[in-house]
Amino acid sequence: MKFQPPKGTRDFLPEEMVRREYVIETIKRIFVAYGFDEIQTPVFEKWELLTKKCGEDIKQQIFEFEDKAGRKLGLRFDLTVGMARVIANNPQLPKPVKRYCIAPVWRYEEVTAGRKREFYQADIDIVGSKSMEAEAECIACAVDCLKALGFEDFKIYINNRKILDGILKFVSISEKKNLEIFRIIDKLEKIGKENVEKELEKIGIKKEKIKKLMKIISFKGKQEILERLEELKKIKIAEEGIKELKEIYKFSKFYGFSNFLFVNLSLARGLDYYTGPIFEIVAKAKKQVGSIAGGGRYDNLIELLGGRPTPATGISLGIERIIEIMKTERMLDLPRTKVKVFVANVNEKMKEKAVEVAQKLRKEGIPCQTDLMGRNLKKQLEFANSLGVPFCIIVGEKEVKENKFKLKNMKEKTEESLSLEEIIKILKPK
Amino acid sequence: MKFQPPKGTRDFLPEEMVRREYVIETIKRIFVAYGFDEIQTPVFEKWELLTKKCGEDIKQQIFEFEDKAGRKLGLRFDLTVGMARVIANNPQLPKPVKRYCIAPVWRYEEVTAGRKREFYQADIDIVGSKSMEAEAECIACAVDCLKALGFEDFKIYINNRKILDGILKFVSISEKKNLEIFRIIDKLEKIGKENVEKELEKIGIKKEKIKKLMKIISFKGKQEILERLEELKKIKIAEEGIKELKEIYKFSKFYGFSNFLFVNLSLARGLDYYTGPIFEIVAKAKKQVGSIAGGGRYDNLIELLGGRPTPATGISLGIERIIEIMKTERMLDLPRTKVKVFVANVNEKMKEKAVEVAQKLRKEGIPCQTDLMGRNLKKQLEFANSLGVPFCIIVGEKEVKENKFKLKNMKEKTEESLSLEEIIKILKPK
Repeated sequence: MKFQPPKGTRDFLPEEMVRREYVIETIKRIFVAYGFDEIQTPVFEKWELLTKKCGEDIKQQIFEFEDKAGRKLGLRFDLTVGMARVIANNPQLPKPVKRYCIAPVWRYEEVTAGRKREFYQADIDIVGSKSMEAEAECIACAVDCLKALGFEDFKIYINNRKILDGILKFVSISEKKNLEIFRIIDKLEKIGKENVEKELEKIGIKKEKIKKLMKIISFKGKQEILERLEELKKIKIAEEGIKELKEIYKFSKFYGFSNFLFVNLSLARGLDYYTGPIFEIVAKAKKQVGSIAGGGRYDNLIELLGGRPTPATGISLGIERIIEIMKTERMLDLPRTKVKVFVANVNEKMKEKAVEVAQKLRKEGIPCQTDLMGRNLKKQLEFANSLGVPFCIIVGEKEVKENKFKLKNMKEKTEESLSLEEIIKILKPK
Repeated sequence: MKFQPPKGTRDFLPEEMVRREYVIETIKRIFVAYGFDEIQTPVFEKWELLTKKCGEDIKQQIFEFEDKAGRKLGLRFDLTVGMARVIANNPQLPKPVKRYCIAPVWRYEEVTAGRKREFYQADIDIVGSKSMEAEAECIACAVDCLKALGFEDFKIYINNRKILDGILKFVSISEKKNLEIFRIIDKLEKIGKENVEKELEKIGIKKEKIKKLMKIISFKGKQEILERLEELKKIKIAEEGIKELKEIYKFSKFYGFSNFLFVNLSLARGLDYYTGPIFEIVAKAKKQVGSIAGGGRYDNLIELLGGRPTPATGISLGIERIIEIMKTERMLDLPRTKVKVFVANVNEKMKEKAVEVAQKLRKEGIPCQTDLMGRNLKKQLEFANSLGVPFCIIVGEKEVKENKFKLKNMKEKTEESLSLEEIIKILKPK
């Protein structure tokens, strides 16, 4: 009897892992260059912590369980809540804390081709700064990650929960329903205008208010659009939100991403903990997969988890969606294996010598394999080919004695006779 | 109200993560050099899969839960079972498959200072080869990992499930109880001789047999000890096991680890799926934490999970134990942060210029931070110091105009006036 991986999860074979690792390592390199340090938290947390401020939709998606002492736990649905707990528990950390984490999270969602229940997020957060410079830096860092991966064309949509609060006030909707409404309008792109309207009706919003609301949130465009929100500016909370977005625009020029920046008043983000600017990055691609990064400010979360009042903002890159686009756009032209060379022996007696050569290459950081199957030379080369190893070295008595080895280029089907030192020079990672 | 991480789990703050990452990256580099490719599997698996061949002790330690459709799942207790499932499901993969994985696993154990319920394993496996060369390569690779981390003195203990089978036959114990007995005698070092004898009595083994058994399994020593097992050699299965260990000795000379190799007949390993040679590495350290690596051959597991009959062997390094020893032995003298330089501004007006300088450094791969708190220069330098950032650059109008910046060495309290190009040369990672 065979076993499949649990529903919504996948296995990653070597060829796929080479691609995943390239994407993750590239993002990590940029995160570190931007001065973010790593903080890791457990994959599961107490149920009470997870559900403190996630909202009803996410709550329904948490994998919940009990440990053997009856403690109620859940697999984390994002990387923010655990980190916020760490900040709450460690007030000694100098502020701002600039933290990154690249790790899996779990949500029990409807499984589709693109959406799984186990997926990776790459998060950066700046904790302790109220300034919109923090937002600008997070977005700039995410943009540099995407550029480093080869993305050229994308849009950064921004909005502000404060503006949304202002809009609801403006159309005279009771504050109590704000979070519920945000979760509904955030689905606009996914489920369409009609369905959003239906859902709003369902929670008791009057038709005329819905109409007014839908009209305002359909605003989308460059910075100038903020000037057209005259009536909203009269509402204090909205005015604050508009001012914050203008500051993000100002700082975006320092970092050179202002051209990619668009206001989108229907953007709300699905999590309850956001309190200020929110943002999403959408890549232009043949196949649309939704946003590939998203985040926002959550100034109350750390206090809510028992910490001191601490402003915070962050952005999260979706690894799977990024990889999906890169695959369809052919941006991931990588070898199938990290093995650089197969050190073949001409016969059983030369095995020890082949291992000796391999060990020398390994010391130089050149990934290599030797035969472990007792295969003849022909079969060894066939195996190397089937694995996609780009080079082979052949080790025989004469070769060892003269320090001249055949280096076979498996793709171009050429070969050269070289000393081990010369071979190392060619194969050593730069 | 504050929340602690769930019992048996920990948070890793930046300073700790710098150390963890150094250990993990070093191990990964050696794994890759040895020609292992990465395979990743989900953190949870179907309950039936996990418990197929783990043994009763481990079964009791699995974190179990159901998904919302009532499927019984469990968090993985090791990285081998998921990988074996992948091999069973993907017969197209060319053999041998050389796979690595460095990831967390979970076991519900008694929590002590050194033992947690969430911990990392670093595994390599060679799948498809019957040859003891595979064992030798796995051990050699683990040894090179330890050497790269600075370990100089350690012992590699080997035994063979086949020899253990032979011993039980020799003392006339019914085969049915073999796995149960292995799990008990494996605890010898942990719980002591008396307790092992008690547990063996409890499962119905006669005292005289226990005495005989304990005498044989107390054998410990170099290869020569294998010659003293005259009586065991008459039992076919034991003879096979002895022959395999001799071959591992032979191949260990190719790789240069024969001096570290010792036979230990009480070594059994706690998992039911082992079928042949088993091994453990123990580091010599002031504070004994048990083995830091262990593994063995599991020739039946893949077939048991629905695959073709496929021989396999592997070794797993325990990240937490390795780090614990390295800390007490002061082998982890690393900076507290990866941030290399703090780019300070002399006043608010110079913020944009400071960001400009930082962006240039980041492009060169130099991790840096700028002020995000609106602090004055003194406070900025104090912050950099509190974080452990080794260098600061000061950006003022004059500095920008003349392209001469003060580079402050925060530890040695020295400073130099340098062009940005010179600074990059000094700080750029080699």
